[in-house]
Amino acid sequence: MAIKAFADLNCSIARPLSFLGERWSLLVLRELFLGRRRFDEMQETLGVASNVLSQRLATLVDEGIAERHRYSEHPERFEYRLTEKGRDLFPHALMLLQWGDRWLTPSGAPNLRVFHKKCGARLIAVVACSHCHKTIDPRDVTFPPVASESMARRGAAAS
Amino acid sequence: MAIKAFADLNCSIARPLSFLGERWSLLVLRELFLGRRRFDEMQETLGVASNVLSQRLATLVDEGIAERHRYSEHPERFEYRLTEKGRDLFPHALMLLQWGDRWLTPSGAPNLRVFHKKCGARLIAVVACSHCHKTIDPRDVTFPPVASESMARRGAAAS
Repeated sequence: MAIKAFADLNCSIARPLSFLGERWSLLVLRELFLGRRRFDEMQETLGVASNVLSQRLATLVDEGIAERHRYSEHPERFEYRLTEKGRDLFPHALMLLQWGDRWLTPSGAPNLRVFHKKCGARLIAVVACSHCHKTIDPRDVTFPPVASESMARRGAAAS
Repeated sequence: MAIKAFADLNCSIARPLSFLGERWSLLVLRELFLGRRRFDEMQETLGVASNVLSQRLATLVDEGIAERHRYSEHPERFEYRLTEKGRDLFPHALMLLQWGDRWLTPSGAPNLRVFHKKCGARLIAVVACSHCHKTIDPRDVTFPPVASESMARRGAAAS
């Protein structure tokens, strides 16, 4: 199954992966979250081929995650800005960053320092229930089966 | 750059993608979060080739995200269980699921119902600061540059 075909699965994890699962996509998104909006600076930081970066940015624009804005007329220059839909991916990216810091950082010292402007603390994010405000443990989450829906192919009613 | 080479980048988003970024990996993880632990049931739900599923499960075990347990001796049968390291990926997966529900669900009706056992509410998760408990907005997060560290190649000191 090609990655693009994930878009047709009946699953809210599979569908975003049809484009976010492409190599570099999440790293391009990282650049935008870090405030790097211009092609050249993203390419320099990522060390990615320019055709790949062009494709990934075009996909993010097509998906409504980023918008292309002209910031200079002479010469004509564009930058990329996150939309609301794009900013809403921040929790997904942040929780991966934090997991990578916690579990895959050889020195134990994260190379990116993240601070929360509102309180000034070094940011340690938690995922909480918006109703009871308790931190979410996966063992406290249930997924009641959707009645008489096939789990198979059509697919993955599971999520 | 091969996806495995992401493991060598100095970035806590890139490193996990060296294996989580492989096609199907996050969907296999979804199966484990949903409580499906056995090869056959995962394969049936996912509709993935058995060699691919074998490889993905082997990688999750190699990375310490899942463990292989024998649950039957005659015949010999194994199942896969998440480790603490694996369970700690739940926020990352959950926030993607929620994003997919919000932005990519054509009907507006998520096909997976998620409930929080602790309070009984339908789960809407938010990412919050563990210090001030406020919900995180990406515009309230700063990444002060690490002094004199190259952003380039070696790479991406950015995260």
